[in-house]
Amino acid sequence: MTLAAWRSPLSRALHRNRSLVYARYLQLATVRADGRPANRTIVFRGFLADTNQLKFVTDFRSQKADQINYQSWGEACWYFPKTREQFRLAGQLILVRENYADPALQQARQSAWHELSDAARLQFAWPHPGQNRANLEAFQPQPPNPIEPLSNFCLLLLDPVEVDHLELRGEPQNRWLYRLDSAGVWLTREINP
Amino acid sequence: MTLAAWRSPLSRALHRNRSLVYARYLQLATVRADGRPANRTIVFRGFLADTNQLKFVTDFRSQKADQINYQSWGEACWYFPKTREQFRLAGQLILVRENYADPALQQARQSAWHELSDAARLQFAWPHPGQNRANLEAFQPQPPNPIEPLSNFCLLLLDPVEVDHLELRGEPQNRWLYRLDSAGVWLTREINP
Repeated sequence: MTLAAWRSPLSRALHRNRSLVYARYLQLATVRADGRPANRTIVFRGFLADTNQLKFVTDFRSQKADQINYQSWGEACWYFPKTREQFRLAGQLILVRENYADPALQQARQSAWHELSDAARLQFAWPHPGQNRANLEAFQPQPPNPIEPLSNFCLLLLDPVEVDHLELRGEPQNRWLYRLDSAGVWLTREINP
Repeated sequence: MTLAAWRSPLSRALHRNRSLVYARYLQLATVRADGRPANRTIVFRGFLADTNQLKFVTDFRSQKADQINYQSWGEACWYFPKTREQFRLAGQLILVRENYADPALQQARQSAWHELSDAARLQFAWPHPGQNRANLEAFQPQPPNPIEPLSNFCLLLLDPVEVDHLELRGEPQNRWLYRLDSAGVWLTREINP
């Protein structure tokens, strides 16, 4: 595969904002079954090898898993504070849960689990998210096996087909729209901010 | 009106993060006419007097104005980096454009225009956002009248009915769900993160 045209400005933004832990946090919008939007912060965990797909992790018990089953389209909004620029990435969301059909993605799910910190893995053994607050003991489970993911652990992929890059710093601001055409080629257009 | 129960933790977050300009930036999710989500960064401009409605400004020519006409429900996701907490605010979006029926909101639109910086006001005189990049002269318009808003200037209000507050700092994390019931009372529930 070829690196999409937006990968280079995104890499640059990640590099220039690397001193801020939260520069790896972005907001993912999905649509609920009732047609209303949902929006939450997620953590970027790199790109899936040899693809332009962004990796995240999520809990199958979370609302977003339901929402993705209903409407697999998502849009991530990523603001970089230090360089004052925004990327909006729209595309299909792929929820890789236990027993996912594709063996390569099964393997990627396992690696993503292994790469989590102990504290992050432990959260997948916590009580059901969004339900009434459980007692303290329920939040002190046995540490899960770092090799074998818990069944509710999902790898989440975003496969962008449109990326809107806005630089607030320009005078006037700069903005580019990247679109994947039907032949699989990324087209770049400079647009008004 | 009474201050909603989530106003106090939100005020505290704003205060504790006040050294970061971008702690007033949040991400607003809307739904497109094709049923796919959209997501972008917007700037919080305070609360509408005597209400729990958040104020923003937008350009009637932007895609979000179209989206709000199609689906008026929105969800804002607001992450505060310094205190490591997130507010998700879901509710109706109200787009107050020129000649809006309610005179009080007409007045609020005018005040919002007046309170903008000169640079922010100038952007509403820029060429149509999202279209092919115009030449440099098009970005050097006459400064608009600071009293009388340009016709494409809109005040945007978010009137939350559900607020989900997550504190990452807790051990384990803390999370509360605030819901407006049919009698107009805010109910608070502590839930699992």
